[in-house]
Amino acid sequence: MEGPERIEYEDRSQAPIGVFDSGVGGLTVVREIIRQLPGERITYFGDTARVPYGSKSRETIIRYSRQIVRFLMTRGVKAIVVACNTASAYALEELRPEMEVPVIGVVGPGAKTAAEVTKNGKIGVIGTEGTIDSGIYTRFLSNLRPDIQVLGKACPLFVPLAEEGWLDGEVATVVARKYLEELCHSDIDTLILGCTHYPLLRSTIAKVMGESVTLVNPAYETAISLRRLLQEQGLENKSAWMTEYNSCEFFVSDAAERFQQFAARILHLTTEDTRQIPIEEYQT
Amino acid sequence: MEGPERIEYEDRSQAPIGVFDSGVGGLTVVREIIRQLPGERITYFGDTARVPYGSKSRETIIRYSRQIVRFLMTRGVKAIVVACNTASAYALEELRPEMEVPVIGVVGPGAKTAAEVTKNGKIGVIGTEGTIDSGIYTRFLSNLRPDIQVLGKACPLFVPLAEEGWLDGEVATVVARKYLEELCHSDIDTLILGCTHYPLLRSTIAKVMGESVTLVNPAYETAISLRRLLQEQGLENKSAWMTEYNSCEFFVSDAAERFQQFAARILHLTTEDTRQIPIEEYQT
Repeated sequence: MEGPERIEYEDRSQAPIGVFDSGVGGLTVVREIIRQLPGERITYFGDTARVPYGSKSRETIIRYSRQIVRFLMTRGVKAIVVACNTASAYALEELRPEMEVPVIGVVGPGAKTAAEVTKNGKIGVIGTEGTIDSGIYTRFLSNLRPDIQVLGKACPLFVPLAEEGWLDGEVATVVARKYLEELCHSDIDTLILGCTHYPLLRSTIAKVMGESVTLVNPAYETAISLRRLLQEQGLENKSAWMTEYNSCEFFVSDAAERFQQFAARILHLTTEDTRQIPIEEYQT
Repeated sequence: MEGPERIEYEDRSQAPIGVFDSGVGGLTVVREIIRQLPGERITYFGDTARVPYGSKSRETIIRYSRQIVRFLMTRGVKAIVVACNTASAYALEELRPEMEVPVIGVVGPGAKTAAEVTKNGKIGVIGTEGTIDSGIYTRFLSNLRPDIQVLGKACPLFVPLAEEGWLDGEVATVVARKYLEELCHSDIDTLILGCTHYPLLRSTIAKVMGESVTLVNPAYETAISLRRLLQEQGLENKSAWMTEYNSCEFFVSDAAERFQQFAARILHLTTEDTRQIPIEEYQT
């Protein structure tokens, strides 16, 4: 395609951080970045036309991720956060060699923290079918501590549950109990919330799992890793004049209004002027 | 694009019926067609790469439907069934003038039966957000009987519930009770299952709604309308040599294996040799 002009920042530290996800879930990562790196601009892309990624094949996820990276590069981003566990699992290692800017996913930081937190070396992971089937958390955790035992469980209803706004109450509890039954009866002491929507259900999951299990939220850990990365590479934005409300721009591939409603209703995040773009045209 | 060659049938009545849906849901329509028109071949397309349609915009649904129709035409189909309520709601009237073969959706037949069945003129409709927001059933029903009152309710969790195979039991019951509460307390006497997945939850929905409410399954009514249409146009396949197992071909836009598993597990339908095709390339 004849791409749109690429924005260039003379002072690279002023450039935004690109964050992408299959839809609205990655906004939980945006929320953490805003909290922990208030001086940074963010350019978010949510692939709302092609959500969910969790049930799609590896090849498709790689193709979609490549298009999104190409789009984010036109916005002049200085780093990219793959705020989607499925895309982190399937596409990150594939795309890294092609990238001109540093890139981090949510899986690495989440796995690292879980490996540090666990006492008995038994860790549970919940996520989409794609993330669980990929075995990505098991691979990361085994690299960190070969003695670790990992128990994975796909929980496909958690995403629509979170998007419906049923974060606690009877339905959320019954669904969580059904999915987590096996993990409850195992002796894991740590549970990774391996899907960006799941932190929204955190209190229900915590209630079902009980106090003996520590929940790890990769969104939180990713923001910490991002800060470290920017410091190491001298890319931190040290201007403090920006606020939560003027430092973010939001793009989606479909139904901008629905995206804004979710962001406002569930995350209390203002995403006015969300723009829809034809992501399929960003072929590489 | 340079499209693939188009299959042509000398005897048009031997040509297959094209059926499409956003994913696996339309297989409930296929099941009805197989049951009621055992002599017909079927070419099914499930847009598993871009499912769900229920939360996407009108423009996107029209664009996707156009690509799918173009693909089905390359298979030489003699008629097309839009086995997706959202696509029927948004794209059917838009596409009809462009079509070379007769096309029917699931909404018309479902609405017609509901208008005949209701005694008190009060009808409930459940479906995806797209179908309910479009008001399509209300429009169809009002055209048929201007005095009819329609009460719509979007039930976004029903699709993932059906795909998880949780068709009855505690979770299905709790979710159905929550969604249908308002309809239970209204005085509707008829309820349209306005999403192709919902017939899979039929027994749970019936239990929650009680015996005083008649459930209308548009998949069933669509198969009846299709038979009438083929008879009127002299397109019936009168050869009876084909069986359920060799008269269907299945195409998807992603993850053929997952599609086959669902078809086998939930619908007891054999969809071997399901082929994946790059539907985005069927631009018009």
